[in-house]
Amino acid sequence: MLEFVFYNPTKIVFGKDQTYRIGEFIKEKKCLFLYGGGSIFKNGIYEKVVNSLKVAGKEWIEKGGVKPNPVLSFVYEAIEVARKEKVECILAVGGGSVIDTAKTVAAGYFYEGDVWDFFIKKAEIQEALPVYVVLTLAATGTEMNRYAVITNEKTRQKFNIDSDKVYPKVSILDPVNTYTVPKEQVAYGCVDAMLHLLEGYFTQSYPNTPIQDGFVETLVKVLIETTQRIFENPQDYDARANFMWATTLALNGLTTAGIGSFGFPNHIIAHSLSAFYDLPHGATLAIIFPAWLRYKFPEKSYRISKLGMAIFNDGEPEKVIEKLENFYSSIGVPTRLSQVKVPEEDLPALAENAYGFAKIRDLADYTPEVIIEILKLAK
Amino acid sequence: MLEFVFYNPTKIVFGKDQTYRIGEFIKEKKCLFLYGGGSIFKNGIYEKVVNSLKVAGKEWIEKGGVKPNPVLSFVYEAIEVARKEKVECILAVGGGSVIDTAKTVAAGYFYEGDVWDFFIKKAEIQEALPVYVVLTLAATGTEMNRYAVITNEKTRQKFNIDSDKVYPKVSILDPVNTYTVPKEQVAYGCVDAMLHLLEGYFTQSYPNTPIQDGFVETLVKVLIETTQRIFENPQDYDARANFMWATTLALNGLTTAGIGSFGFPNHIIAHSLSAFYDLPHGATLAIIFPAWLRYKFPEKSYRISKLGMAIFNDGEPEKVIEKLENFYSSIGVPTRLSQVKVPEEDLPALAENAYGFAKIRDLADYTPEVIIEILKLAK
Repeated sequence: MLEFVFYNPTKIVFGKDQTYRIGEFIKEKKCLFLYGGGSIFKNGIYEKVVNSLKVAGKEWIEKGGVKPNPVLSFVYEAIEVARKEKVECILAVGGGSVIDTAKTVAAGYFYEGDVWDFFIKKAEIQEALPVYVVLTLAATGTEMNRYAVITNEKTRQKFNIDSDKVYPKVSILDPVNTYTVPKEQVAYGCVDAMLHLLEGYFTQSYPNTPIQDGFVETLVKVLIETTQRIFENPQDYDARANFMWATTLALNGLTTAGIGSFGFPNHIIAHSLSAFYDLPHGATLAIIFPAWLRYKFPEKSYRISKLGMAIFNDGEPEKVIEKLENFYSSIGVPTRLSQVKVPEEDLPALAENAYGFAKIRDLADYTPEVIIEILKLAK
Repeated sequence: MLEFVFYNPTKIVFGKDQTYRIGEFIKEKKCLFLYGGGSIFKNGIYEKVVNSLKVAGKEWIEKGGVKPNPVLSFVYEAIEVARKEKVECILAVGGGSVIDTAKTVAAGYFYEGDVWDFFIKKAEIQEALPVYVVLTLAATGTEMNRYAVITNEKTRQKFNIDSDKVYPKVSILDPVNTYTVPKEQVAYGCVDAMLHLLEGYFTQSYPNTPIQDGFVETLVKVLIETTQRIFENPQDYDARANFMWATTLALNGLTTAGIGSFGFPNHIIAHSLSAFYDLPHGATLAIIFPAWLRYKFPEKSYRISKLGMAIFNDGEPEKVIEKLENFYSSIGVPTRLSQVKVPEEDLPALAENAYGFAKIRDLADYTPEVIIEILKLAK
């Protein structure tokens, strides 16, 4: 195991009927209450949250309309509202897009320059408003980590921040809140969390990590099994609960602590696909990952085999990749660029875009040529 | 999975050569520097710590002599020193005994009454000095949790505190610092950490917890394998590192979050044995646990089998218990009361003592009669 610093101060409040407790955990008086497309009005979550805030004597300003693949222009607007209304904290009620927006607003609130500076590493976050979360979609893990991903529509860059200052203070994880999440979203969430686990597993610089390997293999197996169970019965509490906790643990720092340096090559290429065509993050990952595994074969054959034994009880690398694709297909997720109608003539521009991000993330060996080769394996 | 709150703000700084960084993490000016029997002077750790403190411009008062199974009288003395010297934080350089003493001193510092009140739940900890740790013995997990166990020599009670206020701020986990830990201590540490994992695994009120099960099984397997490797080569860095991180993760709240209510019946009986005969904690656990499994058989046969499959690739419950005993014997740990010369006539008094603790810990069904039955299976 290599040296690491592990620090994660987010308090997780997990379980049925915990949503109504959000008010008791918020220490500040006035919140900016962010949400997405308005599903929280249909499934009763809005009411639960508002009742809890009222009981706790809080004040809040609401701002809805955060979109999937959240954008920088919305962040600018929200920062303006937060400043004008002098809020003291941000309450995110939603999935990854809402939470990432909240974290970015929290960091931008105190910064005089352009908040995008944090994403292009031109400035470092010094201070942020406290962020509280009621999670309604299990997928990204942002409810318990130091990252936020935002798309700059103008520059077509999907970049991220990374700072101790943006850990949510408290995140309520109530599996019941995800009962109405449609199967498509569950499937994308499954792929996203799986890749959070497997990017590290397959790119770690130090191989001898039995603890981290065991944790990753456990979580990937649980993601596959619970996704299948949720598809059969969307109100299976245990399946929703295990799925939710697995997605959170998939990117909270635990499985990557000690594995040495590692990269997110699949995410980088997938982010470019999302930025170009506004495709769901989970779909683009499912398209890129099998192609990436084939590109990296046979270099990664030992780990593909190890993972396969743990999750499919099959150690033959090529079969493991096939079984993974079959699983994606069985939950309705595309595994080929042709399925999402990406034209071949776009590949060079896509590769250039991804390379720009790769360089920032210390993955400069992912040259446009390499990326095109991977994209071609995903045709 | 059942509802839970997970919160663990301790920062872990892990790896070779991290000890010299302790000074940079301490925010306060003046520390009470606690240590144990003085091994830190022989293996160079004292010098590394002191150099780091000097470079960081810190002041400190030293107090050594914390003993295994740390006692209340020492805590009283240390609180007095801390108050007299007006220290602002506690630095624990040692294993579980030193850290638990540090946490208790930190909590007692601000309390006007008897610090033992916290252990008998007569008072709740409201405030504590910050605690910093340089770990020199991997075993108890206290470097990343909210517990501290202290023995009251007068009342022969080995009780614990449990509070958010006593999480260490920063714990340095440098596997190199454990190269000189003798095999006997490694073996006891292995048993201790294993039982931290398995008490929950075998007594959890909610059975369907694939994430927690997978984590526990991974960690138990790593503990067994790394202990064997350390016995072969005490300077095997990877083995020491994986052993160390496994012992920390074994009691940091992760593996028990969501499993519902659970108890520490083996610890309770073992604590009484330690309090009566000053036996090492790991030895008493290794004696009690196989007897407890036999007492609980066949009620627990499914889980014994599940664990056995994961760690020994053998699912036959009786064989799993035997293999566990054989493993303990192979690393020189006693598995019978007769090996540590506990006379049969002491059993009633032991059982009464353990029952006193069991009642406080919501395990009142562990009556003296039940405990005697378990002790007899350990003869």
